[in-house]
Amino acid sequence: MIQPKRPSGFNELLPADQLAMNAMISIIKMSYEQYGYAPIETPALELSQVLLAKEGGETAKQVYRFTKGDTDLAMRFDLTIPLARYAAEHFNELAFPFRRYQIQEVWRAEKAQAGRYRQFYQCDIDTLGSKSPMSDADTILTMHSALHALGLKNIIFKISHRGLLNGILESKKLTKSSTEVLRAVDKLDKQGEAAVTNELQKNNLSRKDAKDIIDFVKHSGNVKTIFAYVKSLKINNETFTHSLAELEMICQLLQAGGLSSNEFVIDLSVARGLDYYTGMVFETVLTKNLKLGSICGGGRYDNLLASYHKDSIPGVGASIGLSRLFSALKESFKSMPANPAHVLVVPFEQELAKYSLEVALTLRKHGLNVLVYPGFEKMGKQLGYADKLGISFAVLCGSNEADKKSVTIKNLKTGKQVTVALTKAAATIKKSL
Amino acid sequence: MIQPKRPSGFNELLPADQLAMNAMISIIKMSYEQYGYAPIETPALELSQVLLAKEGGETAKQVYRFTKGDTDLAMRFDLTIPLARYAAEHFNELAFPFRRYQIQEVWRAEKAQAGRYRQFYQCDIDTLGSKSPMSDADTILTMHSALHALGLKNIIFKISHRGLLNGILESKKLTKSSTEVLRAVDKLDKQGEAAVTNELQKNNLSRKDAKDIIDFVKHSGNVKTIFAYVKSLKINNETFTHSLAELEMICQLLQAGGLSSNEFVIDLSVARGLDYYTGMVFETVLTKNLKLGSICGGGRYDNLLASYHKDSIPGVGASIGLSRLFSALKESFKSMPANPAHVLVVPFEQELAKYSLEVALTLRKHGLNVLVYPGFEKMGKQLGYADKLGISFAVLCGSNEADKKSVTIKNLKTGKQVTVALTKAAATIKKSL
Repeated sequence: MIQPKRPSGFNELLPADQLAMNAMISIIKMSYEQYGYAPIETPALELSQVLLAKEGGETAKQVYRFTKGDTDLAMRFDLTIPLARYAAEHFNELAFPFRRYQIQEVWRAEKAQAGRYRQFYQCDIDTLGSKSPMSDADTILTMHSALHALGLKNIIFKISHRGLLNGILESKKLTKSSTEVLRAVDKLDKQGEAAVTNELQKNNLSRKDAKDIIDFVKHSGNVKTIFAYVKSLKINNETFTHSLAELEMICQLLQAGGLSSNEFVIDLSVARGLDYYTGMVFETVLTKNLKLGSICGGGRYDNLLASYHKDSIPGVGASIGLSRLFSALKESFKSMPANPAHVLVVPFEQELAKYSLEVALTLRKHGLNVLVYPGFEKMGKQLGYADKLGISFAVLCGSNEADKKSVTIKNLKTGKQVTVALTKAAATIKKSL
Repeated sequence: MIQPKRPSGFNELLPADQLAMNAMISIIKMSYEQYGYAPIETPALELSQVLLAKEGGETAKQVYRFTKGDTDLAMRFDLTIPLARYAAEHFNELAFPFRRYQIQEVWRAEKAQAGRYRQFYQCDIDTLGSKSPMSDADTILTMHSALHALGLKNIIFKISHRGLLNGILESKKLTKSSTEVLRAVDKLDKQGEAAVTNELQKNNLSRKDAKDIIDFVKHSGNVKTIFAYVKSLKINNETFTHSLAELEMICQLLQAGGLSSNEFVIDLSVARGLDYYTGMVFETVLTKNLKLGSICGGGRYDNLLASYHKDSIPGVGASIGLSRLFSALKESFKSMPANPAHVLVVPFEQELAKYSLEVALTLRKHGLNVLVYPGFEKMGKQLGYADKLGISFAVLCGSNEADKKSVTIKNLKTGKQVTVALTKAAATIKKSL
């Protein structure tokens, strides 16, 4: 006998949780479609030369990569690079701005630890081919709508713009270090000011420049306060001025699109680790569950597609990390039964098997999910089964019932039962559902 | 620049086709839930020692298998072995009979050829822990319901029972060759009588025995005719007698459960290649598209779980090969737009961006999917975009409209347009949807 076990770090759900997960995915899909994003799916496997073109270092190490025949393959580790490949490959078949959503699993061989999985769902939206701040705002508004639809409350979007810090670096003639500075700044929360100052100085920043940058990124608060602060710096640099105007416009559009002023802040420390972001960036946290970290994030990446396509195609998008969010969501979600059936049909004996199937067929025609118990166990055992599965009604098919084309409906929560004509059974059950 | 391409044999869909595919998957899920199957998903990667325990030969060669760290991993190539592992691993957390559905992709490095993909969707149902013929019948009835719900007509279920041929082999003292005989017989359609006779004789069957077996499996037809033929053979063997009674019972239940007599035949040549089947087996074909081959098949496997669990757990199940069926289904399916939006909101200029977002929000509250064009292109360009995406309505937001809190609704099919108060816009659009 082989021990039945999964590789470590790979999670799977029992049916009740899977039903909850599926309900969550349906809600997210519905929100994305409400905002006019169209679905696509990409293959689990891509050519390594395509998938890993832009990725070195940590990410590449985590990728499941192998050779089959003479093809070097890699499993997708996010949905953005595959999107870039898809849009470039199908460029002439798509209408731009191309707005797609994609809800699929990704794989990363991360260190196994609590709450971290090696396979997890990402739920992404992206707009390709639009430089307009309306697309930036639309991205956040769609995410806001999806998170709300999931029943999450106390959501805060923490928004920034890469161009602000880049503008400061330009004005200080430090553009060569911009990647290193962004990476260092991204660690401020976790490693603290001293460590980040140290790292900045290692990258050839003067103590004053390091201090200026840290002072800057420590600012977080409501739109009015932060824009007043940013303007007070009087930085004379085009990138800076342009990015500031763009960010202000995005914030105005967010309010027009339904985000209330206590649902978002400007947080100048938000940089997001990935190198490919070029403009607006954001993270999302639950104020009542900060230890969960960012549950949704994204930003603008205007150069990513240049790796795969001759034309410059700007992009902006975001992702919900659903597998990680699942446990937090489950608490607020109504608990699901272990089976989607509303009704268990209980056949009493062999001779009643056919009548049981007829009953099930009739009930299904009226929109009920019906499980026919396969066999003729004692009633107690069949009802115990319904109970374990969380099924609310049993429909008993004895010979009396079969003779009269009737059924006895037992409400398994109240214990009450009633015998009615088969033609009226579905209506009777639906009244108490 | 990196050439954007996929590994060969990996298919992906454009948005309109993906929307059609998603609609098909929803229909299948709904059918499976109507019959009381609960969803599960299993990881893409399993331990090779678990996944490949029962598989040698051809299948093993097609598996994507590799080592990461010191773990020998394999991508799932079907949904049945992962189910066996899942049920054994979670045995104490599940209620039996355990009825699950699973709609996920599987991967097989098959030779690339038209209509064959290396990644494809399987849509499976299985019942574990029930020996009752009611479960066999339920499997076929559920598949029948799902295929009908997809709009397929002229479906024929070709049903047989492994025990009939096994019984004949027992009566001829040829049980040692049963696997080889089943494999040979499975090729009758493709290779013809002479080749199969030859293969049977190679496996030490006499010419008479080979002829008897081929005569037997050539029989196919309606229930009455074939059962009369099978009984006329007067084979005195318990396996044979028992299997015949079981198959008769299954056929009676199929009729009681809504299968009409012209929707299924007994076809004694149906054996299904896989070794693990032990009882009823079936294939499904479309009589108007026979070249498509079997679109759905399954059967009973009472020993498979013994590899992973100490208790004997019988199983029966079936699978729809959706990716292969997709092209055939698409013809009968209404064609889908390239975007799920019902409405494109057309903003005329920067100053109207905020009003456009307000309009979109109002329409969405009334259940419409709304895409706000990101930017202020000329109206012709924005309407051309709606046209390419198959969006039916444009809602024009000019300054007149914004001043009066109204919108101009343009029906893009008829060209007609009407200006109404924003509060009445959703109702006006829904009337013409």
